[in-house]
Amino acid sequence: MPYFPAVDKIRYEGPASESPLAFRHYEADQQVLGKPMREHLRMAACYWHTFVWPGADMFGVGTFQRPWHGTGNPLELAIGKAEAAFEFFSKLGIDYYSFHDTDVAPEGSSLKEYQHNFAHMVDHLERHQQDTGIQLLWGTANCFSNPRYAAGAASNPDPEVFAYAATQVYNALNATLRLKGANYVLWGGREGYETLLNTDLKREREQLGRFMRMVVEHKHAIGFKGDLLIEPKPQEPTKHQYDYDSATVFGFLQQFGLEAEIKVNIEANHATLAGHSFHHEIATALSLGIFGSIDANRGDPQNGWDTDQFPNSVEEMTLATYEIIKAGGFRSGGFNFDAKVRRQSVDEVDLFHGHVAAMDVLALALKRAAAMVENDRLQQFKEQRYAGWQQPLGQKVLAGEFTLQTLAEHAVAQDLHPRAVSGRQEMLEGVVNRFIYP
Amino acid sequence: MPYFPAVDKIRYEGPASESPLAFRHYEADQQVLGKPMREHLRMAACYWHTFVWPGADMFGVGTFQRPWHGTGNPLELAIGKAEAAFEFFSKLGIDYYSFHDTDVAPEGSSLKEYQHNFAHMVDHLERHQQDTGIQLLWGTANCFSNPRYAAGAASNPDPEVFAYAATQVYNALNATLRLKGANYVLWGGREGYETLLNTDLKREREQLGRFMRMVVEHKHAIGFKGDLLIEPKPQEPTKHQYDYDSATVFGFLQQFGLEAEIKVNIEANHATLAGHSFHHEIATALSLGIFGSIDANRGDPQNGWDTDQFPNSVEEMTLATYEIIKAGGFRSGGFNFDAKVRRQSVDEVDLFHGHVAAMDVLALALKRAAAMVENDRLQQFKEQRYAGWQQPLGQKVLAGEFTLQTLAEHAVAQDLHPRAVSGRQEMLEGVVNRFIYP
Amino acid sequence: MPYFPAVDKIRYEGPASESPLAFRHYEADQQVLGKPMREHLRMAACYWHTFVWPGADMFGVGTFQRPWHGTGNPLELAIGKAEAAFEFFSKLGIDYYSFHDTDVAPEGSSLKEYQHNFAHMVDHLERHQQDTGIQLLWGTANCFSNPRYAAGAASNPDPEVFAYAATQVYNALNATLRLKGANYVLWGGREGYETLLNTDLKREREQLGRFMRMVVEHKHAIGFKGDLLIEPKPQEPTKHQYDYDSATVFGFLQQFGLEAEIKVNIEANHATLAGHSFHHEIATALSLGIFGSIDANRGDPQNGWDTDQFPNSVEEMTLATYEIIKAGGFRSGGFNFDAKVRRQSVDEVDLFHGHVAAMDVLALALKRAAAMVENDRLQQFKEQRYAGWQQPLGQKVLAGEFTLQTLAEHAVAQDLHPRAVSGRQEMLEGVVNRFIYP
Amino acid sequence: MPYFPAVDKIRYEGPASESPLAFRHYEADQQVLGKPMREHLRMAACYWHTFVWPGADMFGVGTFQRPWHGTGNPLELAIGKAEAAFEFFSKLGIDYYSFHDTDVAPEGSSLKEYQHNFAHMVDHLERHQQDTGIQLLWGTANCFSNPRYAAGAASNPDPEVFAYAATQVYNALNATLRLKGANYVLWGGREGYETLLNTDLKREREQLGRFMRMVVEHKHAIGFKGDLLIEPKPQEPTKHQYDYDSATVFGFLQQFGLEAEIKVNIEANHATLAGHSFHHEIATALSLGIFGSIDANRGDPQNGWDTDQFPNSVEEMTLATYEIIKAGGFRSGGFNFDAKVRRQSVDEVDLFHGHVAAMDVLALALKRAAAMVENDRLQQFKEQRYAGWQQPLGQKVLAGEFTLQTLAEHAVAQDLHPRAVSGRQEMLEGVVNRFIYP
Repeated sequence: MPYFPAVDKIRYEGPASESPLAFRHYEADQQVLGKPMREHLRMAACYWHTFVWPGADMFGVGTFQRPWHGTGNPLELAIGKAEAAFEFFSKLGIDYYSFHDTDVAPEGSSLKEYQHNFAHMVDHLERHQQDTGIQLLWGTANCFSNPRYAAGAASNPDPEVFAYAATQVYNALNATLRLKGANYVLWGGREGYETLLNTDLKREREQLGRFMRMVVEHKHAIGFKGDLLIEPKPQEPTKHQYDYDSATVFGFLQQFGLEAEIKVNIEANHATLAGHSFHHEIATALSLGIFGSIDANRGDPQNGWDTDQFPNSVEEMTLATYEIIKAGGFRSGGFNFDAKVRRQSVDEVDLFHGHVAAMDVLALALKRAAAMVENDRLQQFKEQRYAGWQQPLGQKVLAGEFTLQTLAEHAVAQDLHPRAVSGRQEMLEGVVNRFIYP
Repeated sequence: MPYFPAVDKIRYEGPASESPLAFRHYEADQQVLGKPMREHLRMAACYWHTFVWPGADMFGVGTFQRPWHGTGNPLELAIGKAEAAFEFFSKLGIDYYSFHDTDVAPEGSSLKEYQHNFAHMVDHLERHQQDTGIQLLWGTANCFSNPRYAAGAASNPDPEVFAYAATQVYNALNATLRLKGANYVLWGGREGYETLLNTDLKREREQLGRFMRMVVEHKHAIGFKGDLLIEPKPQEPTKHQYDYDSATVFGFLQQFGLEAEIKVNIEANHATLAGHSFHHEIATALSLGIFGSIDANRGDPQNGWDTDQFPNSVEEMTLATYEIIKAGGFRSGGFNFDAKVRRQSVDEVDLFHGHVAAMDVLALALKRAAAMVENDRLQQFKEQRYAGWQQPLGQKVLAGEFTLQTLAEHAVAQDLHPRAVSGRQEMLEGVVNRFIYP
Repeated sequence: MPYFPAVDKIRYEGPASESPLAFRHYEADQQVLGKPMREHLRMAACYWHTFVWPGADMFGVGTFQRPWHGTGNPLELAIGKAEAAFEFFSKLGIDYYSFHDTDVAPEGSSLKEYQHNFAHMVDHLERHQQDTGIQLLWGTANCFSNPRYAAGAASNPDPEVFAYAATQVYNALNATLRLKGANYVLWGGREGYETLLNTDLKREREQLGRFMRMVVEHKHAIGFKGDLLIEPKPQEPTKHQYDYDSATVFGFLQQFGLEAEIKVNIEANHATLAGHSFHHEIATALSLGIFGSIDANRGDPQNGWDTDQFPNSVEEMTLATYEIIKAGGFRSGGFNFDAKVRRQSVDEVDLFHGHVAAMDVLALALKRAAAMVENDRLQQFKEQRYAGWQQPLGQKVLAGEFTLQTLAEHAVAQDLHPRAVSGRQEMLEGVVNRFIYP
Repeated sequence: MPYFPAVDKIRYEGPASESPLAFRHYEADQQVLGKPMREHLRMAACYWHTFVWPGADMFGVGTFQRPWHGTGNPLELAIGKAEAAFEFFSKLGIDYYSFHDTDVAPEGSSLKEYQHNFAHMVDHLERHQQDTGIQLLWGTANCFSNPRYAAGAASNPDPEVFAYAATQVYNALNATLRLKGANYVLWGGREGYETLLNTDLKREREQLGRFMRMVVEHKHAIGFKGDLLIEPKPQEPTKHQYDYDSATVFGFLQQFGLEAEIKVNIEANHATLAGHSFHHEIATALSLGIFGSIDANRGDPQNGWDTDQFPNSVEEMTLATYEIIKAGGFRSGGFNFDAKVRRQSVDEVDLFHGHVAAMDVLALALKRAAAMVENDRLQQFKEQRYAGWQQPLGQKVLAGEFTLQTLAEHAVAQDLHPRAVSGRQEMLEGVVNRFIYP
């Protein structure tokens, strides 16, 4: 008995389609820059928002009455939820999914039960993957919802909590390997503080460093080839999260010698909560060599919390996609829809509306970005803008041939009078719009 | 002829004083924790806001009619301004000051003129220092106001601008050495971007790294013993400034091998613009080993730009001071009032009101913080909170004696069930208030 | 069997006390400006955060294991919860409390059950009030948590939801009358929108106007003498809440002729979420004649959601209290602690820590504010600052004796040259600190 | 001698054009919904950003070296500036412009000189208007830049400043009438406060009310038929501006009986600084009956000050334009580009780049919005969503036929069980994208 009886497989119908249950732009096998769209975008649906969250918020209880929720034997409910999930992924025509350990399996009342339940569900997931061809973009462990993690997981004042978290990550990483996951993500949801009054920043940072080192070593020990990804977020639920943004994570990784081992999973809404544009976080991570994957969503520009809405701005996603494909595209990462329908979107069909519209936004953004890359006016402009650094003065500076003193003497001797040159921001914004609205 | 004829030397009159031109709490030589207040606080007045800024903002022209402004020969005006400044510092009874090269000397129309004017004014400053005993907390170069720096200084697309900035820093650092400055500050006011559309992040970062390396080498070459300090700020005037916050600077320093060479000068208003509390930035820099000095001011919690108001919250400054003195106090840094009177505060006496009240706020905060340190309930609580990490499990984890797998096996074997323990935030907030309001 | 066996009645021990379970400043019957502290402050504890909330947030389940939570017959649990609440209020020594209908009684599965349960619990509350002397500061109805209110209550697209909300408010207002509540509050938690794409602003506003009119008429019909209070908040849970801030509510009230009938209940954290200082919202409501009551708490200046922390800044609360007592003090309003302990504060004693510290903050703020009012330097300064408006030109302008033309002619004829006069902000900030830190 | 010798008249070249100096979408006389584009959009260029601002910011001096700036006789410079402006407007092919009194004429050193200079320049402007056919969208007076306005204009503590401002508004409104301006704008740039410590909110509000009343009466006295428009902004340069947003202005207007006399001029960047979307402010003003005109620009979502960038989001402007044309379009208002090129955009041609791209954005947004209005899926959805209010229960509620009590009795008697209905936000977002990306 299907969970989504009213919805057929979503198909590509082209731009003229008026159906909210058809793709207007996403045609999985359409070639863009010599590669099918699906391989560029590597889109994933997430388990938690779509199959676990009941529609509750801080001021109200759940509004959703999903057929796969309800009461009963937790493991049987989990099996039903997995069936619903894979029916959804299949009908949606999305190639990947993502999950936390506790999304897919009941936590149980002890670590043994946890391991048992999780292993059982991994069997189910593996079978579903084989049946459908759907793949795992990444797995992760939920080390933030249970009360034991109220003061953090690896950064907890209690080493037993560290050990508990280690057990979950151990299991989740192993499961990800077994399910041929392309990456493994670490979001330190409560690795941060509520108040500095009771917090030893230095100690907690060292605990985190130790934890990450252990995860890296385990990855190599078991031969997991995917990327390890830290997901930055500045705050919420904590007052301050240690993995604030990409630049902060970069500093942390270097301190513990991990900058070649761990990359970042950038979430649009986390970027904006951190005071950055999504574009900025991507460009920064690329420039630091730690770009890994994307949690595609959007925040509300007027609300100060993680709204995790579906991406719906082609303008924003075109620039994001442009940066990514210009840098060679995803290696093992992809676009994971860490997005949820609104609490008022109580019907199952709303789950399709959200994902279909978002997949179309990414598909269109990809086409626009591809055109930008093919005729790369921005790149051309940049090369011209920095051309002076190819000249002798610039080359000698970069090569370390000047000291501060000899450079100052040179400047005075040459009586330098450099002048401001137009950055042409308005022209370039017009150029981008020419590509987005051809 | 004095510039502030209506104001006498500010004196300590004790808490009962109702005069806005007397100290109620700051008694320079009063011992606190075995050291005079003045040595703890190392307070400085800044040249730019107090002697250069005319009271203009983005929507209005200058409102101040300072006797040392006006028109005439620029060098003579600069000499008068220096006289006014030292009269002010002396009457205020502040021990230190700070300046940009172009605050104290006219830029001139060429680098030669710049060097000449600056050297001339350094002579004057040196004489004033000798006459008054007032010392230089730090010097710096203004590489952001002139149009040539519109697209950055070291990160400029034009290497001649890099060279121009190098010349200024060369001169300003040399001047700081000569004036026995305790530190040298680098604020990258336009080291950032207006739009990613025309910006090569990686290249600009490397330019910045090169620049900083040159400054460090020059410092050693000339035997300057003070600290080099980068001043983080997230944005403004740029859309994004590379030295966003302390954690970001730490990542940058490590990338270029400079983390032992450069520290940070933390400004309260910059911290809050970056989405952090002032307390956070101090605690973070201390935990990373890069804490240097403070720009004491405050922002407006509802306004999104640098308001640079005088600090007036004893509550906030007590926690800041507590962190600093608990960590051993300032080495070469101090509290520099990077603060300006409001545009409506048009009278010279307002400059005194602002500084006197702020110095009193710091003095009182120091006394409150000293009491906290003497009877360090927060520290005691923290030690107890993390005590588990002194036990065998925690010690073995930190010592690297577990792999992820062996730790998971241990956790399962022990059937761990750690529980949330109260973080006692409300109690600790009450403890802090007991110290602030004894 | 007591719910808080480890805590005795909180007593005043004076400033030297180091106990977190004693008052250092709050002495209920101490006279301040001729009135006992308790009558000035009219402090209340709230039912919802303290007795209902389980310590859950958007990223984690409840951490609290309160003896009065648990499973069982809902009405019996509610009875136990009321016993716990009144034990708490009594031991705390707080004079007032506040509640939502659904905090104190189970919703039931129909309106009939709702009415029955609520009436039953009102009997219990009445008896507890009589036994303890504790009074009701205000009652209210929860028209936002149940899924039926997902799209608003009075502003819902479905008039049956409007009718449902009306039934709750009818019952809650009647209960408030019976319990001799001093006020009745209306917080429109979901009276707002998630997206303009599906929202008719004008229509929803008219629905709200109608609703408020009905509530006002009912108040008069039943002879309720307390104030009706709208509680402004800008957003959360909605993307935009119609009662954004005091100025917005004022516009709404005028449109529907209600400005003499409804006042505002100002919450500190809501003020800051709206981009205002708490001080601003109080001063604004007072200036518009709609000030009613206070939800005393604080937000986190770096977090963009309602953190509802306990007030702990004497500096902030002194200015708030100064405005209120200067305007004559509360009529029927008071300080309601709409505040919750942090999710990590899992012990029952933390509830005492939070309230005791906050009550002390208000008590000290009251004393400081009283001193300010007694020697009202701010008021004196203001009178002098606006003195020109007592002169003929100002008086004639205000009396409407000039047209724009005659005033312009006057200005030209007189060749006016008004100049900027110092606003003395820095001096006044110092004055305030003199009162806070005497 | 032309001021823009390198630029020819901007022409429509169609979407395929790659020229930054051609329109791809704006064809002034193209019919959209039965009206030429130019009449729908009524676009204006502003004088201040484009012809007055030198490219200075708070951290740097002007970067622009405009041929019409420079030193010399102020009145002659003003005449040259007007020639440059009208050459620019003409070459751009924009139909309207806007100005402050002090943009177009030197202030002089007395009100007499001010009046003389301004009158002289109005003659010039009138001639230029006649010569070019370019019209005035609105005039206004700058009552915020001169030091005399540091503490406000109408809300100043000094009535002489009120009189000075009245004189400027008198002259500027008269000039606007003479130049056949379509509207007159009042932006209260410093009508607000820096600190509540020295501010009497109630008194200042009354001063403002009096001022506005005088302006309204003068408008009628001279027979000006255009709209008077208040421009809301929440802050900057003040800490708080009284005309915070549209809802706040509505409350103010009602208090002084002016809601039928004054409308609002909504600026996109001011909306976002106030914590609202641009879309919200437009929809709100329309729903309150006070929508007048638009200042078309955009802010930077990460920067907390007025960046006044050119609008470049078709996505955002489509929704804005949809609301406006659905409500019947502009009456006397229009889209005024209150936008400036970046400080780095130092060339005259950048002024064209900014305006051309922005005009194209509006033109394309208009076409997209027109398609949305023609096939108004959003409106259809709303009608269906609120359909219950057309049924007897809803109609009786709105007609006032229920009291709170009879409605509660009805609800209980009917045993109402309303349920949440999907708001279909995700589907509607997809619908909008179908129109924007057809």
